Amino acid sequence: MKKKSFQDYLPFIFLAAFALIGIFIPSAPAFADTSKYNPADVAWILVATCLVFLMTPGLSFFYGGMVNRKNVISTMMQSFVATGIISVIWVVCGFSLAFGDSIGGIIGDPRTFLFFKGVPEGAAWGTIPMLLFALFQMKFAIITPALVVGAVAERIRFTSYVLFMVLFSVLVYAPIAHWTWHADGFLFKMGVLDFAGGTVVHISAGCAALAGALVLKRRKDHVEKKEITPANIPFVLLGTGLLWFGWFGFNAGSSLAANSLAVSAFAVTNTATAAAGLAWLFFDVVRGRKPSALGFCIGAVVGLVAITPAAGYVAIPQSIFIGFAAAIVSNMVVHWKSKTAIDDTLDVFPCHGVGGIVGMLLTGIFATTTINSAVTDQGWLYSGTPTLFLKQLLGMVIVVAYSFTVSYIIFKLINMFHPLRVSEEEEALGLDVTQHNENYHAQSLTVSNNGALKEEELLPQ
Amino acid sequence: MKKKSFQDYLPFIFLAAFALIGIFIPSAPAFADTSKYNPADVAWILVATCLVFLMTPGLSFFYGGMVNRKNVISTMMQSFVATGIISVIWVVCGFSLAFGDSIGGIIGDPRTFLFFKGVPEGAAWGTIPMLLFALFQMKFAIITPALVVGAVAERIRFTSYVLFMVLFSVLVYAPIAHWTWHADGFLFKMGVLDFAGGTVVHISAGCAALAGALVLKRRKDHVEKKEITPANIPFVLLGTGLLWFGWFGFNAGSSLAANSLAVSAFAVTNTATAAAGLAWLFFDVVRGRKPSALGFCIGAVVGLVAITPAAGYVAIPQSIFIGFAAAIVSNMVVHWKSKTAIDDTLDVFPCHGVGGIVGMLLTGIFATTTINSAVTDQGWLYSGTPTLFLKQLLGMVIVVAYSFTVSYIIFKLINMFHPLRVSEEEEALGLDVTQHNENYHAQSLTVSNNGALKEEELLPQ
Amino acid sequence: MKKKSFQDYLPFIFLAAFALIGIFIPSAPAFADTSKYNPADVAWILVATCLVFLMTPGLSFFYGGMVNRKNVISTMMQSFVATGIISVIWVVCGFSLAFGDSIGGIIGDPRTFLFFKGVPEGAAWGTIPMLLFALFQMKFAIITPALVVGAVAERIRFTSYVLFMVLFSVLVYAPIAHWTWHADGFLFKMGVLDFAGGTVVHISAGCAALAGALVLKRRKDHVEKKEITPANIPFVLLGTGLLWFGWFGFNAGSSLAANSLAVSAFAVTNTATAAAGLAWLFFDVVRGRKPSALGFCIGAVVGLVAITPAAGYVAIPQSIFIGFAAAIVSNMVVHWKSKTAIDDTLDVFPCHGVGGIVGMLLTGIFATTTINSAVTDQGWLYSGTPTLFLKQLLGMVIVVAYSFTVSYIIFKLINMFHPLRVSEEEEALGLDVTQHNENYHAQSLTVSNNGALKEEELLPQ
Repeated sequence: MKKKSFQDYLPFIFLAAFALIGIFIPSAPAFADTSKYNPADVAWILVATCLVFLMTPGLSFFYGGMVNRKNVISTMMQSFVATGIISVIWVVCGFSLAFGDSIGGIIGDPRTFLFFKGVPEGAAWGTIPMLLFALFQMKFAIITPALVVGAVAERIRFTSYVLFMVLFSVLVYAPIAHWTWHADGFLFKMGVLDFAGGTVVHISAGCAALAGALVLKRRKDHVEKKEITPANIPFVLLGTGLLWFGWFGFNAGSSLAANSLAVSAFAVTNTATAAAGLAWLFFDVVRGRKPSALGFCIGAVVGLVAITPAAGYVAIPQSIFIGFAAAIVSNMVVHWKSKTAIDDTLDVFPCHGVGGIVGMLLTGIFATTTINSAVTDQGWLYSGTPTLFLKQLLGMVIVVAYSFTVSYIIFKLINMFHPLRVSEEEEALGLDVTQHNENYHAQSLTVSNNGALKEEELLPQ
Repeated sequence: MKKKSFQDYLPFIFLAAFALIGIFIPSAPAFADTSKYNPADVAWILVATCLVFLMTPGLSFFYGGMVNRKNVISTMMQSFVATGIISVIWVVCGFSLAFGDSIGGIIGDPRTFLFFKGVPEGAAWGTIPMLLFALFQMKFAIITPALVVGAVAERIRFTSYVLFMVLFSVLVYAPIAHWTWHADGFLFKMGVLDFAGGTVVHISAGCAALAGALVLKRRKDHVEKKEITPANIPFVLLGTGLLWFGWFGFNAGSSLAANSLAVSAFAVTNTATAAAGLAWLFFDVVRGRKPSALGFCIGAVVGLVAITPAAGYVAIPQSIFIGFAAAIVSNMVVHWKSKTAIDDTLDVFPCHGVGGIVGMLLTGIFATTTINSAVTDQGWLYSGTPTLFLKQLLGMVIVVAYSFTVSYIIFKLINMFHPLRVSEEEEALGLDVTQHNENYHAQSLTVSNNGALKEEELLPQ
Repeated sequence: MKKKSFQDYLPFIFLAAFALIGIFIPSAPAFADTSKYNPADVAWILVATCLVFLMTPGLSFFYGGMVNRKNVISTMMQSFVATGIISVIWVVCGFSLAFGDSIGGIIGDPRTFLFFKGVPEGAAWGTIPMLLFALFQMKFAIITPALVVGAVAERIRFTSYVLFMVLFSVLVYAPIAHWTWHADGFLFKMGVLDFAGGTVVHISAGCAALAGALVLKRRKDHVEKKEITPANIPFVLLGTGLLWFGWFGFNAGSSLAANSLAVSAFAVTNTATAAAGLAWLFFDVVRGRKPSALGFCIGAVVGLVAITPAAGYVAIPQSIFIGFAAAIVSNMVVHWKSKTAIDDTLDVFPCHGVGGIVGMLLTGIFATTTINSAVTDQGWLYSGTPTLFLKQLLGMVIVVAYSFTVSYIIFKLINMFHPLRVSEEEEALGLDVTQHNENYHAQSLTVSNNGALKEEELLPQ
C-alpha cells in the first residue's frame, strides 16, 4: 500500500465540509409562484432532465467501447464520475456562476444561489419551477466535461482528470453558459443563437479536448502508429442509442415546455441525426472503406451535435442538410487529423468541436422566425443578409478562443503540481488496473507456462 | 481496396440529393391549431416517441446477443441502421404514403406531405400536433424492418439489406399502415381492430421474415445442424429490458393522450408480457428443458407482440390469457419449425408473425366497449357472435398474404441485380469482419505458433 | 433428461389456472372519476412507472457484473424474472394485500381487488386513476425481492428462489407496504414517514437478504477466502446508470403528481446520490485503496437508498449530508462484514439494509414542513425534540425484526421440502450452466489438448 499524502485527504475533506455546512443552511420555504407552473410542462421537463442525465452513462459506453481493452473501465469511469462531481459543484456554486445575478454580463454572482439557496423559492422560470430549470441545466453541466474525456483517454491520471473537471466547470463552462443563456450575458444580448448548447456544451468541450490532447501529448501506441482495435463495438452502439434517446430531452426539452416548439426541435433532431449517420456511412463507402457500425454511430453523434444549436430555430427540410454537411466535414477533419501528430484519442475535437461549429454557422443561415418568434434576425437564406451569420461566427470564435485558452492553462497548471499523465509503465499496463485496480472482463485469459489458461491477476494493491 | 462501382456511389448520391432539395423547401409557417393541443398529451406522446425509438437499439441487443459471435455487430447494425434509413424515408415520402390523402383506401398520396411539407402546420391530430403524431408513427416504421433482420441474419449482405428496408418500408409497411390506421383505409373501414400494430408491425414483419428466410436459404451451420451458442445472453436480457420499457410507449402511447385508455393499455401490456414470459419458462420445464434466461426473454417479447393489437380494447383479467396462449403457441411453433428445413435464424416468424396472429384473433374474442367506446362490434366472448372475430381473421389473412408475397418478390428482385447473400467464405469468416471490417471483442484470442496469445487480426481492408 | 416430478408441473398449472380464471372475470366498466384526473399528473406517473420498471433490468446488470463469470446469467435471471412473477402475483392478490380494505391495520383484504377487479373503476387516487397508482406500486413490489438476490447469489437454486419471491412478496412485502402506506396502516397512523420506500423496499429487502445469507450459509469460495473478480464492471456501470435514471421515477414519482414536491424530491435524490458516490470513492482513498468504478457505483446506490425515505420531506442542503453519511456508514459495515463469516454475496444488507436505516433515521432529523405540509412532527433539527426521530426508530426496528424473522422462516420452510442450495458440484461448475443450461460468453475459451482453442461446451441437457 502506497504512503498517503495530504493530497489524498483533500477531496474527502472538501466533501465532508460541504456536507456539514449543508446541515446548517436553512431549508427553503415552500415553492413560490406555484400558480405560474404548468403541470404538463413540469412533467415534460422532469422527464427531459432524466433523459439528459442518461446521456452521461451513455457517453461512458460510447467512449469505453472504442478504447483499448486495458483502458475500458478508466475511460468509462472518467466520464461517469462527472455525475457525482458536477452535481455537487453545481449545487454549491455552479448554478450561481452560470445563472446568478450577472456581473457585467461575464459571470454570475456565486453568492446568488450558494448551496441552491433561494432556488426552490425562486421566481418561476416561464411555466416551470426555477429549481427544475436548475436541475435540467445541471445535466448539461455534467455531460460537458465528460465529453472532454475522449481526447485525453488512455493516458490521463484519474485524480488529475477529476481536478480538471472541477476547474473546467467553474472557469470555462459556467462563464460560457452565462454569456449565452443568461438574459444579461453578452453573447445573448448580442443576439447569438444557441438553442440547446452548440457552443456552451459542444464547442467548449471540443476545444478543451484539443487543448488536453496537446498538453498531454501522444500515447505511446499513437507515436508507434499501432492500430488500436476498439474493445467492444456493441458498447458503442449502446452508447449511441442512449445518447440519441437522451438527446431528445436535451434538444426538445430546451423549449422548457411541452409545446409545439419542443415537437419541432424533436423533429429536426431526429432528422439531422439520421441524415448524418447515413452520410458518414455512405461517404466512407465512396472513399473505399467498408460501411461500419462505428461510422454510423459517430456520424449520428455528429448530427446530434450539429443540430443542437439550431434545434429550436430551423425547419425540418433544412435539417437534413445540417446533418449531412456536418457529417461530411467532420469525417474529413477526422481523416485529416489522423495524418497529424495530434492525439485526440476518440476525435472529440473533430466531432464535437467541428460539429458544433458547423451547427452554429448553419443556424446563421437557416434560422427562421416561422419556427421561433424569438429569432430577431432571420438566417441568411431567408433574410438575404449575413447579419445573423456574422453574429454566429463571432460568438463561435469567442467561445473557441476562450475555451481552448483557459482549458490549456488549466491543464498546464494542474500538471505543475500534480502530473497529468500516468507513468510509461502504467500506460503500458493500462489505466484500468493502475488507476482503479480493476479489470475489464475477468475472463481475459493468459496462457501460463504449463499451457493451462488462467485468469489475469490483478496487480497487488 | 476493392474497385468501386457506380452502385457504391448511389446511396450517397440519393442522400446528397435529399439534403440539397431540402434546403429549398420553404420552412413551415407556425403551427396551426395550437389551441387544440393539450400540453399533457403532448408531454406523454413526446416521451412515448422517445420510448419507441429506444426499442430499436434494444432490438439490436436482443438479436445481437443471440447470434454467433462472428456476426454480432453485423446483426446489431442491420437493425440499428433502420433508425437512419427509415427516418429519412419517412420524412421524404413514407408518412405521405401511410397517412397522406387516400388513393382508394389502398395507399396515401406521396405528394401530400413530401419532405414533411404541411405536417407542422397540419390540423391537430386529436389533442396533439400532427407533427408529433408523424414522429410517433415514424418510430413504428423504423422498428418494423429492423425486426425482419432476425430471420436473415448471419448470411445477408449489408447493402442488400439496406435496399430491402427501403423497398419494404415503401411497398409493404406504408400500405398496410394506410389500410389499418388511415380513416379511409379499407381494413379500418371494415372494422378490423389493431390498436398498436399487431398487423401493421408484427404480422407484416413476421411474414417478411419468413419470405426472407426462404429466399436466402439456409446457413451452412444450419444445414450441418451445428449448435450455435448465443454470443452474449446478457445482451439479450438488456434488449428485452429495453424492449419491454419502450413498449409501454408503443402500446400506452397509442391512445395518443395521457388518459385512462393509456393507463389501461399499460396495464394489459405489462400483465400479458409477464404471463407470457412465465408461460414460456414453465412450459419449457414441463417439456423437460431447463428454465432459461433466453426462454423468459423470448416469451416476454411474444407476450408484448400478442397484446399489441389488443392493448386498447381488452381488460386486464383477459390479458393474462392472451399472454399465456401466445407464448404456448409460439413455443410450439418454434419447436416444430426447428425440425423443418426453414432457417429463420432467430425465430422472427414464430414469435412476431404467430404472436401477432394470436393477438389479432384474441382481440376478436376479448375486445369490449367498456374499455374503448370506439369498439363497434364486441368480441365473441361478450357479443356471443363471431362478427368481430371473422373481421380480424380476414384482416389477418390479407396482411399475411400481402406481406409475404410482396416481401418475397422484393427479396427475389434484389437478388437479381445485387446478390442477397454473402459468399460461402464470407459466411464462414463471419459478417462482422467481411461486411464491416469490425470485430466483436478485440479480446478474442488465438494461440499463435509460439504459444503466446495474440489478438485476432482484422482482415486487411 | 432428468425425470420430471409433479413439482415441475406446479408452476405451469398455477399460471394456467390464473389465465383461465381471468377469462371469466367480467371486464371492468369504464373508468370512474375521470373528471378528477389531471392529465399532466397522469403523464408523469405513466413515465415514472416506466422508469421504475427499468430499475429491475438495471439491477440485473448491477448484480450480474459483480459476480463470478460462471454465475452471471443466473444472477441476472433471478432478479429479472421478478418482472414476470411479481407482475402476476400483484394482479392476482398482491395489490389487495397491500392496498385493499385494511384488516386491523395489519394487512389488506385479498378479496378487495382480486385479479385487479374494481381497480380500473376505483376512486381516483388524488389526481390519477387508481389503476395507475396500482401499476406504479407494482414496480416497487417487483424490485424488492429482486434486490434480495444479491445476498444469495452464486448458490441458490433458481426454483427455490422463485418460490421465495412469491412467499416474500405476499408475506413480507405486502404487509409492510400496508402498514406504511395504507391510510389505515399502523405505522402510517403512528406517523412514521417513508416517502418512497426506505422501509418498505430497502430495509425489508436488506433484512431478508441477511436472513437468506445466514440460512444458505457460505459459498465454498467464500469459505476458502478466494478473491472473486467481478465478471464485467461495465455491466455494473450500466446497471448503476439505469438505476439512477429509474430512481428519479421512484422518488420524484412518489409525489404522484407533476408538482413542486416531485421537483424537490428529484433534487434531493440527485444531490444525495452524487454526494454518496463521491464519499465512497474518496473514503476509499483515505483508507489507502484506489478509487474504483465499483466504489463509485456502490456508493451512488447507497445514496439512492438512503434518500428514498426522506426524498419528499427534506431540503437540498441537508441531502448532501444524508448521502455522505450513509456512504461512510455502509462502507464501514461492508468492511466490517468482510471480516466475519457472513456471506452476503453482494453486500445487500450493508447497502440496502443499512442505507435504508440511515435514511429512515435522518428523516427523523431533517424532515420539515416547509418541504411537505403533510409532515406533522418536524425533524429533530427543526423541532428540537426527538418525537419524529423516535417514531422513525421504532418503525425501523419493527420492520427490521419482521422482515428478518419472516424471511428467515420462509427460507427455512422452503429448504425443508425443496433444497435451497445447489449441489457442491453445481456450485463449482457455476449456476449458469447447471440451473439454466446457458453460458455467459460463447467466446469463453479453453485450450484443448492439441493446443487449438475451442469454445467451452455446454453441459449435456
